[in-house]
Amino acid sequence: MNNKHFSVIGGDMRQLSLAKSLASDGFDVTVFALGDDIANGCTKGADLISSVKDADYIILPLPVTSDDTTVSAPLAKDISIDLSELFKLVNEKQFVFGGKISNKTSSLMQQYRIQPNDYFLREEFAVLNAIPSAEGAVELAMSELPVTLHSSRCLVMGFGRIGKVLSHMLHGIGAKVTVCSKNLHDIAWADAYAYDGINITDMKDKISGFDVIFNTVPALIFERRILENVNKDALIIDLASKPGGVDMRAAAELGLKTIWALGLPGKTAPVTAANIVKNTVLNMIHELGVSNI
Amino acid sequence: MNNKHFSVIGGDMRQLSLAKSLASDGFDVTVFALGDDIANGCTKGADLISSVKDADYIILPLPVTSDDTTVSAPLAKDISIDLSELFKLVNEKQFVFGGKISNKTSSLMQQYRIQPNDYFLREEFAVLNAIPSAEGAVELAMSELPVTLHSSRCLVMGFGRIGKVLSHMLHGIGAKVTVCSKNLHDIAWADAYAYDGINITDMKDKISGFDVIFNTVPALIFERRILENVNKDALIIDLASKPGGVDMRAAAELGLKTIWALGLPGKTAPVTAANIVKNTVLNMIHELGVSNI
Amino acid sequence: MNNKHFSVIGGDMRQLSLAKSLASDGFDVTVFALGDDIANGCTKGADLISSVKDADYIILPLPVTSDDTTVSAPLAKDISIDLSELFKLVNEKQFVFGGKISNKTSSLMQQYRIQPNDYFLREEFAVLNAIPSAEGAVELAMSELPVTLHSSRCLVMGFGRIGKVLSHMLHGIGAKVTVCSKNLHDIAWADAYAYDGINITDMKDKISGFDVIFNTVPALIFERRILENVNKDALIIDLASKPGGVDMRAAAELGLKTIWALGLPGKTAPVTAANIVKNTVLNMIHELGVSNI
Amino acid sequence: MNNKHFSVIGGDMRQLSLAKSLASDGFDVTVFALGDDIANGCTKGADLISSVKDADYIILPLPVTSDDTTVSAPLAKDISIDLSELFKLVNEKQFVFGGKISNKTSSLMQQYRIQPNDYFLREEFAVLNAIPSAEGAVELAMSELPVTLHSSRCLVMGFGRIGKVLSHMLHGIGAKVTVCSKNLHDIAWADAYAYDGINITDMKDKISGFDVIFNTVPALIFERRILENVNKDALIIDLASKPGGVDMRAAAELGLKTIWALGLPGKTAPVTAANIVKNTVLNMIHELGVSNI
Repeated sequence: MNNKHFSVIGGDMRQLSLAKSLASDGFDVTVFALGDDIANGCTKGADLISSVKDADYIILPLPVTSDDTTVSAPLAKDISIDLSELFKLVNEKQFVFGGKISNKTSSLMQQYRIQPNDYFLREEFAVLNAIPSAEGAVELAMSELPVTLHSSRCLVMGFGRIGKVLSHMLHGIGAKVTVCSKNLHDIAWADAYAYDGINITDMKDKISGFDVIFNTVPALIFERRILENVNKDALIIDLASKPGGVDMRAAAELGLKTIWALGLPGKTAPVTAANIVKNTVLNMIHELGVSNI
Repeated sequence: MNNKHFSVIGGDMRQLSLAKSLASDGFDVTVFALGDDIANGCTKGADLISSVKDADYIILPLPVTSDDTTVSAPLAKDISIDLSELFKLVNEKQFVFGGKISNKTSSLMQQYRIQPNDYFLREEFAVLNAIPSAEGAVELAMSELPVTLHSSRCLVMGFGRIGKVLSHMLHGIGAKVTVCSKNLHDIAWADAYAYDGINITDMKDKISGFDVIFNTVPALIFERRILENVNKDALIIDLASKPGGVDMRAAAELGLKTIWALGLPGKTAPVTAANIVKNTVLNMIHELGVSNI
Repeated sequence: MNNKHFSVIGGDMRQLSLAKSLASDGFDVTVFALGDDIANGCTKGADLISSVKDADYIILPLPVTSDDTTVSAPLAKDISIDLSELFKLVNEKQFVFGGKISNKTSSLMQQYRIQPNDYFLREEFAVLNAIPSAEGAVELAMSELPVTLHSSRCLVMGFGRIGKVLSHMLHGIGAKVTVCSKNLHDIAWADAYAYDGINITDMKDKISGFDVIFNTVPALIFERRILENVNKDALIIDLASKPGGVDMRAAAELGLKTIWALGLPGKTAPVTAANIVKNTVLNMIHELGVSNI
Repeated sequence: MNNKHFSVIGGDMRQLSLAKSLASDGFDVTVFALGDDIANGCTKGADLISSVKDADYIILPLPVTSDDTTVSAPLAKDISIDLSELFKLVNEKQFVFGGKISNKTSSLMQQYRIQPNDYFLREEFAVLNAIPSAEGAVELAMSELPVTLHSSRCLVMGFGRIGKVLSHMLHGIGAKVTVCSKNLHDIAWADAYAYDGINITDMKDKISGFDVIFNTVPALIFERRILENVNKDALIIDLASKPGGVDMRAAAELGLKTIWALGLPGKTAPVTAANIVKNTVLNMIHELGVSNI
């Protein structure tokens, strides 16, 4: 497969790192709209047409677009790539991959008879991405706290992917981990892993006993009436995507230190984040290949 | 809730231990068809009628029946409890709980307007029950191996509940853990927990590198062509329910030491197994109460 | 070094396994007084003279002797090897290794100008041997308890080698670990590893809170006045060498289940135990070689 | 003991935090030469005489002095406390505690018939202090690396207190840990904890395989000839006290990213660091009390 040709178009440091990683695996890699720092082994595309032309696989960023019109390309402020213009250039033998492909973009792709391959929707992507998210949260807590995370009483709200990996890391570092969930089976899992587990209905009464609170649930759970019970020295780290899980205004008024940490993988471990995209795309190609034959 | 009355009818050591545990929590407990060793604090029912009469909650064993006709009661060989006869005695204010309620039994209960409350179907039961299953498997491996499990190369086939808890315990003891699955996201989870992960398509080539193989998948994965590659000194422990995952005849012909370990919770940790039933039933009562009000 | 010749003389299953392991490493191996089951690749010595004659290295068992007169050889009941007779046959180019060489035996060896190389005294041997000891204790506890070790409240008395490895394994399996010691720095280590730590002066008051008690200290710590406070359902496992740490008579009178587990490595994991001897002896040879040149 | 009176004289944020922690335990606390931010519950001493006068226990900073003449007091630049002047004020019923008491200071104290109680020399202090040191190193690595520490190949040079705690945390987070030592028993410990272990004689050949290198040994181990083999993307964190373990000039010339991280406990977790001093001093007081009676 190593004589295959990838075009990495648009994106941030993560995509730049992705291009570099593909090149060091021995693939041919063209980059376009990724700024002037071209990674070793990659070729800079002269223009959109030539960047698309020879590609077997075209990789778009995560998210593909923020305006449903142009490819997200923060490293190339002088270049604007119209999605329609791009899709028009894609032929039937080429595959296009992107992250968080919006409904509008997906419709547009289908108009051009392009299959929307979204790596962000893959379960293995979500699991692997939980690793840099959790580690980023651990780093943030270590950096903000005047005490060690070791021996600290940590509440992890929610026991999905990030909740699971975060709890595992905190426990591994020597923190005292309590998982909170509305699901009895999540509390059973907490028991299995030797964490404490509390039901969300008991949280209000027990919230005062924690030094650090990590939220992973994208719903307004930490309302004022809960926040009022939080220890004044506690640190709250919200890892939930919009709308987040903490009433930020109330937290501020109560003098609680709160950090809403989004996009941790790309920020704290861009090379790891890029490798996760790469491995997921390679998995998808492998499956496409199988189904094509 | 502590003035509530439980009747524990039929079952093995696990149910006896369950009765004892309920009594020590302060509940009134009547036992029937559980043999002559009556646990502290429990009353032995004189007959079926009186055993059912005052109960708020009736707990039947796991499984409720093995013949779809009578309650399973291995500790009381001289007593035969007809399911119809039992259900006839139950009034509309009483709740009946049982494990692995068969379709036939369920139909019968509905005929008598009794709701079939199956604790075996609860997710928290399944998760918690994976703990004694996994620990039983660890004990078995330690007991059979002439080497320590520490440093041994262990393959865990499948990453469901038992696979997850077992991998966690093996890793915690110092074994080298490899998870095998057909799902890429399971392999991603293995990575997250710092185990090795292999795809089932690669298993045949890699199977020779393991000292212990734990199967948790109830499908014939370890066929002869796979078993032929297994190290002659390796130990195979099959934890999968029927039909199991190992071709036992081929294993025997190849001289491979293979153990099919079923029902580990009740066998290796009956008190823990009983507490899991108890806690699950109490959860169910709590939810029934909420929905009744 | 692989053309070197070892003679393994006397001993139990561990020495037999040691011989086999050396042979599979490619060494020439002669065994004598190890019974009739000769491991693959080993030669059975015809008599003591020929068994000693060509050896570069002679390995005696652990312990070398139990009567200060003959080599310990439980697998060869019809053979008696006089220590003097053996040492007389050793020439100045040969090295002799043994475990727990007694003062008397050591003097005898020096009389024959043989350096007593005791592998049992090596620190790396003691550390590595703590692994099968600890795992043997875990297996024993799992086998004896009607509950899972997971979630059990375990006391580890003493934080030497076995205490450290045992605590690590128990924690790894999901038990609740408390370390007890008279040393404040041991309690600090317990804290570092996220165990609870208690001072031995507080043990009497806290001992009732444990489900399993592991003793590793060879001194009579668990006297009657302590045992009186132990939970009646608790299991006590004494891992300390003679005189042991538990007043066995008092424990019996109080109805406490107590197991004095000695020699666990050789019993529960003879192959691992043999490899530890082998690796230690190879380390010693390496060092002798360096100092000789 | 709670009506006892402490004076905390000189020092940095750690001592300020120590004073606060003692006050919140219910002790009377006077602070002097600690700047203008007086912690809740502490009294600011008017001058040296009154600050010393009523104290039962006087706590000096870590280190007590940097010039062998005056108390180290970086938060009170306008105050200079002569050691002789201070010791002159101490009566025979008062106890003085300090960290890293120099030989000269110790002699001076004995001249004034004051026992030099050095909390820095206590083994439990050293063990507990390894926790914030190790966690600080983890935080630093997370912050500097473009990849996650999870899955990274980490070398820990030395297996003393910091090496042990650091390895444990790295393993707990999901890093791949290799311990390097000149001692075979350290490598045996690495094996016991399921890390890889390498002998220092093999380090030169294996050093290229690591993403992060943590040094804990205060000797020039990472000389140019070793550094030449280090991976260009690797991060080196030197935790060893002076003279450090890395040839910094060679590392710079080779373009290796190297950080010499000293005093991590006070910098990254001052509150934890203060509690460690407090608990150690309380232990010392407890022992002094016992030996006095």
